[in-house]
Order: sequence, then C-alpha cells, then structure tokens
Amino acid sequence: MTVQERIGRLRQKMQETGVMVYVIPSSDCHESEYVCAHYRAREYMSGFTGSAGTLVVTYEEAGLFTDGRYFIQAGQQLAGTQIRLFRTGEPGVPKIEAYVREMLTEGGMLGFDGSVMSASAGEKLLQAAEEKNADTLVTRDLVGEIWQNRPPIPDTEVFLLEECYAGERTEDKLARVRTAMETVGADVHVLASLCDIAWLLNLRGNDIPGVPVVLSFLQITRDQCIWYVRSQAVTGEIRRKMSELGVTIRDYGQIYPDLETLCAGQKVLLDKKNVNIRLLTSLPAGVQVTDRPNPSELMKSVKNETELQNLRIAHIKEGLAFTRFMHWIKTHAGKEVITERTAAAYLDAERKKQEHYLGQSFTPICAYREHGAMVHYSATEESDARIRPESMLLVDAGGHYLEGTTDTTRTMILGEISREEKQMFTAVCRGNLRLAFAKFLQGCTGYSLDVLCREPLWQMGLDYKHGTGHGVGYLLNVHEGPNGFRWRLPALTEHPAVLVPGMVTTDEPGIYLEGRYGIRTENELVCKKDVENEYGQFLKFEILTLTPIDLDGILPEEMTMEERGWLNSYHQRVRETLSPYMEETERLWLQEYTREI
Amino acid sequence: MTVQERIGRLRQKMQETGVMVYVIPSSDCHESEYVCAHYRAREYMSGFTGSAGTLVVTYEEAGLFTDGRYFIQAGQQLAGTQIRLFRTGEPGVPKIEAYVREMLTEGGMLGFDGSVMSASAGEKLLQAAEEKNADTLVTRDLVGEIWQNRPPIPDTEVFLLEECYAGERTEDKLARVRTAMETVGADVHVLASLCDIAWLLNLRGNDIPGVPVVLSFLQITRDQCIWYVRSQAVTGEIRRKMSELGVTIRDYGQIYPDLETLCAGQKVLLDKKNVNIRLLTSLPAGVQVTDRPNPSELMKSVKNETELQNLRIAHIKEGLAFTRFMHWIKTHAGKEVITERTAAAYLDAERKKQEHYLGQSFTPICAYREHGAMVHYSATEESDARIRPESMLLVDAGGHYLEGTTDTTRTMILGEISREEKQMFTAVCRGNLRLAFAKFLQGCTGYSLDVLCREPLWQMGLDYKHGTGHGVGYLLNVHEGPNGFRWRLPALTEHPAVLVPGMVTTDEPGIYLEGRYGIRTENELVCKKDVENEYGQFLKFEILTLTPIDLDGILPEEMTMEERGWLNSYHQRVRETLSPYMEETERLWLQEYTREI
Repeated sequence: MTVQERIGRLRQKMQETGVMVYVIPSSDCHESEYVCAHYRAREYMSGFTGSAGTLVVTYEEAGLFTDGRYFIQAGQQLAGTQIRLFRTGEPGVPKIEAYVREMLTEGGMLGFDGSVMSASAGEKLLQAAEEKNADTLVTRDLVGEIWQNRPPIPDTEVFLLEECYAGERTEDKLARVRTAMETVGADVHVLASLCDIAWLLNLRGNDIPGVPVVLSFLQITRDQCIWYVRSQAVTGEIRRKMSELGVTIRDYGQIYPDLETLCAGQKVLLDKKNVNIRLLTSLPAGVQVTDRPNPSELMKSVKNETELQNLRIAHIKEGLAFTRFMHWIKTHAGKEVITERTAAAYLDAERKKQEHYLGQSFTPICAYREHGAMVHYSATEESDARIRPESMLLVDAGGHYLEGTTDTTRTMILGEISREEKQMFTAVCRGNLRLAFAKFLQGCTGYSLDVLCREPLWQMGLDYKHGTGHGVGYLLNVHEGPNGFRWRLPALTEHPAVLVPGMVTTDEPGIYLEGRYGIRTENELVCKKDVENEYGQFLKFEILTLTPIDLDGILPEEMTMEERGWLNSYHQRVRETLSPYMEETERLWLQEYTREI
Repeated sequence: MTVQERIGRLRQKMQETGVMVYVIPSSDCHESEYVCAHYRAREYMSGFTGSAGTLVVTYEEAGLFTDGRYFIQAGQQLAGTQIRLFRTGEPGVPKIEAYVREMLTEGGMLGFDGSVMSASAGEKLLQAAEEKNADTLVTRDLVGEIWQNRPPIPDTEVFLLEECYAGERTEDKLARVRTAMETVGADVHVLASLCDIAWLLNLRGNDIPGVPVVLSFLQITRDQCIWYVRSQAVTGEIRRKMSELGVTIRDYGQIYPDLETLCAGQKVLLDKKNVNIRLLTSLPAGVQVTDRPNPSELMKSVKNETELQNLRIAHIKEGLAFTRFMHWIKTHAGKEVITERTAAAYLDAERKKQEHYLGQSFTPICAYREHGAMVHYSATEESDARIRPESMLLVDAGGHYLEGTTDTTRTMILGEISREEKQMFTAVCRGNLRLAFAKFLQGCTGYSLDVLCREPLWQMGLDYKHGTGHGVGYLLNVHEGPNGFRWRLPALTEHPAVLVPGMVTTDEPGIYLEGRYGIRTENELVCKKDVENEYGQFLKFEILTLTPIDLDGILPEEMTMEERGWLNSYHQRVRETLSPYMEETERLWLQEYTREI
C-alpha cells in the first residue's frame, strides 16, 4: 500500500467512527523518543522516518508537523504523498493544537490513541476539542486497525547492570526518589519513562533499537515498588533480584486497573510530558496530580564516579574504532568501492572488536558530500552514495558499551577542498572548542553558554537549525534530558537545567549548505569543578570523545592563538591516550593528524 | 539623631501601634528606582544611601536587605548601627518575606506604608502575615511620624518635550497603548511608573534628582485619559496642550478615590511590580486585575528614528566632555590638587559647555584606586580622595540632554601600573568588545549574550557581581527595562525581553579587587539589523558612546587579532567623530590615544 492508500483507509475508519480529525504522534506508551517498529504508526502512515513528528489527518488534508532537524528530510520523504509539511518553530506555522482546532468544525469529533499520546499534548488537544464543542474518541488505535503485517511488540530479555557499571544500588536510588516524593508530599509516583525505570532498577533490555530498555511501568509508593512488565521478559534471576529488592512484578497492562484503585485525596507525582494520557485518565476523581519532572530525570543525568570512570574507558574504545575508521577512509577512499553504508558497517565492525560492545546507540549518519547537509540523514539503498577521494564525509555515530554510551561526529576531508569549505570547517571547529574550553560560574544553564559555540558562525551570517548539544544517557538513550545547550530561551513553563558536575552533554555545531555539503564536529563534554573563590564555584568541561578533528580542513590562521592551543592540547591527549593501543602505521598516521598547528 | 536613636523612636511607634515587624522599602508611591529626598525613608532609618535596599525592623533586630552592587558600601555604612546586613542572592540568605514570616510570632502584627510598597512585594508580605495569623497595619507611615525636618515633596515645573526630540506624538503613543489594552481585554489601565507617564505624555519634570519626571499617575480607558498631578506643577501651556490631547487633569491624590468607583466586572491592566499596593487595594471587589508589564515599558525601550538620531548627537556632546576630561586628568594628575569630587565637578563643567544639557543622569562615580572596587561608590566629604599620578581612576557618569541620556564608564590610567593591572584592564576591554561586536539571531535575549562579555574574565577565575548591562531611557531614568544583559536566568515568572532593533543597552564589565582597585569599561549599544538570510534576521550593535578606552592599560598581545581590529575600528570612529570639534592640543592627544594597536 502506498502512503496515500493508507491515508485513504484511515479516512474510511474515521468516517465509520465519526472522527473528523485524527492525530498520530511519534511515540509509544512511554513517550519514548525512539520507538520499536510496532509503534511506528506515524511513520507507517506518512512515510516520514524521522524520530520527531506528528501527523494530523482530516478528510481533506493530512499535515505533518516536524522541527528544524528534519525539514529537508521530511520535505523529500513527503514528496508525492500530498501530506503538507508544517515546519514547527518557523514564523506563521501554527501549533498542532491550533491547527486541530481550526480543522475541527463545531460539534465534530477528534480522535487519537490515548495510550501513545502524552498527557500534556493530549490535554491541549482535548482543550481544543472542547473549545469546538467536539466529541473525542481516544480509546481506539485506528492506525492499528488498518495496519497489515504490523510488527509485534518485542519480547527481549532483561539483564542486570552490575554495580561496577551502575555505580549506585537500586535501594539507594529508590531512597533518593522517595525523598524527592516526600519533598512534594506525594504518596504515589507513576513512572513510564523507560530510561528512568532502567536506571532506577539497574536493568537493561533490548526492546527499542538503539535504546537498551524494557517496555514497563513503575509505581512507587512510600513502602512499595511495583514493576509492570511482560512476564516473558523476566528471567528467574531477575525475579530473584527484584524480590530481594522488595520490587513486586505485575503484568504490563495491570498498571491501568491498578491506578483506578487509588483513593481520592492521594497525591500522585507524575510528569505529564512523560506519561501517556490513558495513565492520567485512569486516576479516579479526587486524586491530586503533581505535574513535575520525574526526580530520576535529574538524578540519572548526573553521572556518578563509577559511571564517569567507565565512560572514560568507553570513549577510549570508541575513539580507537572511530580513529581507525578515519584513518581507513582517508587512505582508502577512491582506492576501493566504498559507499555510505559500507563505510558505516566498517566503523561498526571496528567497534565490534572492542570488549563489552553491545550495539549502536543510534542509526549512524554516514553522509557524503550534499547528503551531509541533511542534519539527520540516514542512507537508504537508493540514496547510498559512492565515496570518492574528494569533498567531505560527515559521520555521526555512537555505540553502547557496558561502560556507557558514546556519540561522536567527525567530518572527514577526502581530497582537496576549497578555501571556503576550509573556512566553514574551521569556524565549526572554533565554535566547538570555545564551548568545550569555557569556564563558567555554577548556576549557568546550557542557555547561558550556547552563544559561545554559535558566535563564530553568527559572525559569518551562518547558523545551524538544531541545538548545540544534548545530554547523553549511560547505556540508555543517547539523547537524555534535562541538560543541553540551546540559545532560544524555553517556554516559561519549562525549568532549564542548571549545569552540574557529572552531567554529560554533547557539543556539536555544524554548517549545512543544502545541495552542497554538511560539516559537524561533535564531542561529548562532562561538566567538572574548576576553582572555587570569592566569586563562587567555577565549572569547566572535560572532553570525553577521543578522535582527531581532521586537520586537513583547518586554516590555522583563522584561529586565535588560544583556540589553536586548545586544539593542540586536545589532539595531544587523543594521541597520548590512543597510541598505546595502536599498531605502528596507525600510530604514525595519528601522530600526523594530531600534530601541533 | 543617630541611626540607632531613630530605630529606637520607630520601635516606640511600633509598640504604640502594636506593630511587631515594620518593613521600609526604598521607593516612593511610583516604585521609582531613584526617589526624591522626601521618600528616602529607608536611608533616613538606616544610613545606607544606595538605591536598592529594604529595612526590616523588629523589637530585637533590624536587618537591611540589599544586592551585590551594594555589599561593600552597605557593610561600611551600616558599621556601628547594629543593623544586620542581608546579602540577597547569596546562598543561605532568606528572602524578605521569609525573614518577615520568621520574625512574626503567631497572631502578631506586620506593618508597612502601603503607598510606597509595591503591590507584588506587598502581597508577599501580606501572605507571610496570613500564614502567621498576624494582623496588618498598612495605612500608616510610621517613619514619617518620627521624621524631623523631613524634606518636602518637590513642586517642580513640567515642560513639554517637542516632537523633534520625542519623535512620536502622544496621540499615537496612547493609541498604541489602547491597542495593547484591547489585546488583553482591559477596560482600564492604571499607570504609576513616572518614566512611562513622561514618555506617553511627552512631558518631563524635575521631581527626582537625576530623573526628569513629574510625580503623577495616569488612568487610561478606551475613551479617557486622566492625569493625576499636583496643580502647582502644571502651567497654563501644559494645561492647554493636555486639553488639546483630550487628557483630563485631576489632583494627584484623587487617583485613590477614583479607583474606588470602578465597577465590578471591569478589567484593569496594571503591573503589580510597578504600582503601590494602596492603588491595588483601592479597586473594589469584583474588578478583575490583569497583572502584566505596562505596554509602554517595551514601547519606550525601542527608540524611534528621531530618538536614535538625537542620541547620536547627545553622545557626541558627552564624548567631547568625557574625552576632554580624560585628557585633562591624565595630563594634570599630580600637577595640581585634584580630588574625586573636584574631578567629577570638572567633568560636569565640560558637559555644561554643551548645548541642551539639562543635568547629570545620576550621581557620578569618581572613584580613585581602592574606591573603584566599590561598584556604586559615591565620594563623600570624608572619603574624597586626592588623585595622584599613579594607579587608576574609575569614572562612571552621564548626562541628560534634550537629545537623550548618556551613561559612560572609563577607567583612566594615571601612572605606571603593574602587568597584573594591565591584564585585568585588557580582560575587561576584551569582554566589552566581544559583546559590542557580537552578531546574533533575532530572538536572542540579553541572557543569551551575557557570557560573551564575561567569558574572558571567567577564564581567569574572575567575575563582577552586577549585570553586564541595563537599558537606558531617553531623557528618563538611566536604568530602564525591560532589556538588559544578565547571565543567571530569571525567575520563571519573569518575561526576559527579546532584543529588538532600537533598544539601547549598556555594556559594562568590570573587575573589583577590594582594597586595591576597580576597573570598568562601559559603552552604550543600540541594537540594529544586520543581514537577513535563510537562517533568519541577524542583529548587531552600534556603539553610541564616543570616548577612548585608555590604551595605557592595554596589553595588545593578550588580545586576539579580531579584538584588536574591533578596538582599532572603534577608536578610529571616536577620533573621526570628535576631532572636528577639538582644538589642536586635544586633537593631537586624541590621535595618540586612538592609535592603532
């Protein structure tokens, strides 16, 4: 079936049920950023494969809302589908709820599947329906009803993450969450975020490609902790461990009836952005909801000493794989047939030689020449470009190790590039270094620092339409809140996270010239203490990533002495850390590509 | 009477009335930052002369709350008074309302003069009282009752600001305010902010030293505009003009009874931070209050083309005065007896030679050597230091001209200074330039850009405990919102102002080493459009201030080539703009001090 046929079938269903506007979000029952194949309803209905986007279908029109990271990709993937692209954040583009309100006629009907719609987004949609005196149907998955050969919900096995990797016992993590519950006077905490559950229980699974978690819910009270999970996922060993910890195991779907039995007057802590609206509406009337970020969100973002020590090891492994890949591609491009996809496979094969490697932390972006201008490009069979000894190759990739998760981007120069290209490459490198070597007072958020990275590009009238950086999970989602680097202040209702020692955030400026090339340089930074004096506690970053920044793209004369010093000190550390593990040829190559400039 | 005696008298009054905790804010009935002598109750009671601070008096204790700008000064001025200094913003320092709650015993009584307490601060205090089941007395000015020889309320004359200076007619300004009222559905707008009233009516007065405004209130409805003002202040010409504009004049105090006659169901727009709580409580029950920033706040911050053209002229005048002062002090220090106060007088005498000069825009800071470390130092007869041909002199001063208001700080090198001092001076200059020459996308607030200025200091483990910059009024308060440069994100309830072309903001980093010296370099920047392209509208700044940055303090080798280029281009503009007005000696000196480095 083509996308248009699918939309036709959905409209039939809509007509049968009386639904006038049907909204299909990107997520699963846990508001996950990445979802397993079973939950890719929006992708199934639109053909757009990006991680973020919402499809709104009416009888006359279908509209896809996505953000700046995906404008180019969505434009291409929607071509020929008659789905209209809404570029959120651009001037004049309505919010989804405003569009839904406009599309609903007075007294019509709005539909969506409440079990995959976040409570916060769902409430806004219900509000829009109310303003139009419209009915709602939120208990039927209309896409599921027409989806042929829908992939099943996965049943992967769960494994324990030992304390030598996790660094903190579940008992202690639960105690910290319960203290946070007390602070806000909550009797019950409902947790649907898969990464938070995995972090709290020191468990990992394999239910979502690239995110080692297990589909489950958690209900925490002052003296109980109930884990709702498919029984097939849980081995005897895990059952014993959970029993030791006092964690009760119940069936995955039992969370909904269980919440219905809570008593009026009980206070429930949950994060409306991170629970589905069916969980919220399962709560009986009279239950008080405290809508706050999950306490575990901030806790897991601050890596403990064990995690940090492990992460340094993970980054040596990743650095060896990435640097060997870089050496290979720079010396072999043009000499043998290499495509974007075979190159990505080569990199992953290098990773597989490392101990404790568990798999890629996201679908790698291996984007040659003009493909690099698509911020979240992923090579398909059709697009897979042959890599030649010219222009640039942008590779953004990462791995999961027992020692943690990595995310690196390097743009590799594969031949002579123009002076303009080198100026762009150098500007990206300067932005990256200025942020990485910043010193700042405790109290800064990522909003305070973002401009350090963008200013060299802004001076040239350039920008990148994505954040400068995101938090990174520990053997969890490679995108993790609440920390990040952004320039545009958030909505007033959001709580920007103050940077805290132990937080890991990426630093990834880029330049994207559509149809020509893309450049991005990404390192992971861990926040650390610097001096404390009468002005306060100063903080700085340690760069975790260990891979050379391609000196073939650098114009030293366009950098300040300070910036050159920073690049040289970073390259020296890359060389000294990786060399002992390398063979002679690699080592000589690394020496050249980490030389002083 | 000493401060202790005054506090003793106040405590007597408190005992007579049963008040247990009495709060004395800094402001007048209009929540002005600077107030006329009549309203300096907090200064009278504490001896602390800074512009910001709140005194809380109980039977046992008296505490003064002030911010980082005044920590050193307040510490000195409170010495011997037994008043405890609360450094707001420092860890562990309570908020005023928390302190008041702690000091109030159950069922006690809280007092303050409601006509000088802002509605927002007043509501917090009343809430604290409620939590302690305490009574309140907010209709008596207990300080006024004990104040001997209290200065009278001024009766200065009001003058019209012609359209060639104001650039927009009152009719058009009122129409814009009424449109804003419509947007929020307001029937009535109550305005107490003196600068907003002066801006709207294109009037100026002289009721507050340094701020050319007239004490008055405004009530705007869809078809009426009532100006509450002392009759003595208004000449026949002004009456005629107001009558032409359809502005009704009533007596100053009539605003309170007038507000009592509003009808239930009417919607009143007011800014609780900028009206006194007596205005708020005069509204009858059933009146709906919309608490928002005054629409005129943002409007007046965006200078129109006429104002901008005038400001450029004002800055030539100020630049001539300041540069001549700088030339004189650098060539005469040590050769004649010059003190901080005579130096300040010399600068003002230079200003008086300029046409349309109306007076100083604030008490000048002329701070020699260690006095420079006090951010808001003001020389007294006792402290007035003799200026010698050594160390540094920090001068922060400004004037009001019909063409607008100026605010400049220069630190002048008066002899050989150490390498460390030069490093500090150079770092301050680098921070100043990095912000002034920034390019940035529309949508940035001052919070996004502040770090550009601070980073050179933060790299050295240094900071300044004040904002990087504030908005500047046009022949109004030299401190004007809503724009500014700050690094710490504001409370979630505040709306940070996006930078808009036409906004004027200062750029004033500094280094303050207590007991040693202070360095600050301050320019005024006006926001302007830069290129617009696929990334959006880029913005940049034009530096309005025209005075050399003392090259005797600069270490060129500590600046990047880009920074040196910025300084050279700025100095070239200073030289080219001021030289035509200068005599030979001055011109030669200026040439040397604006030379390329």
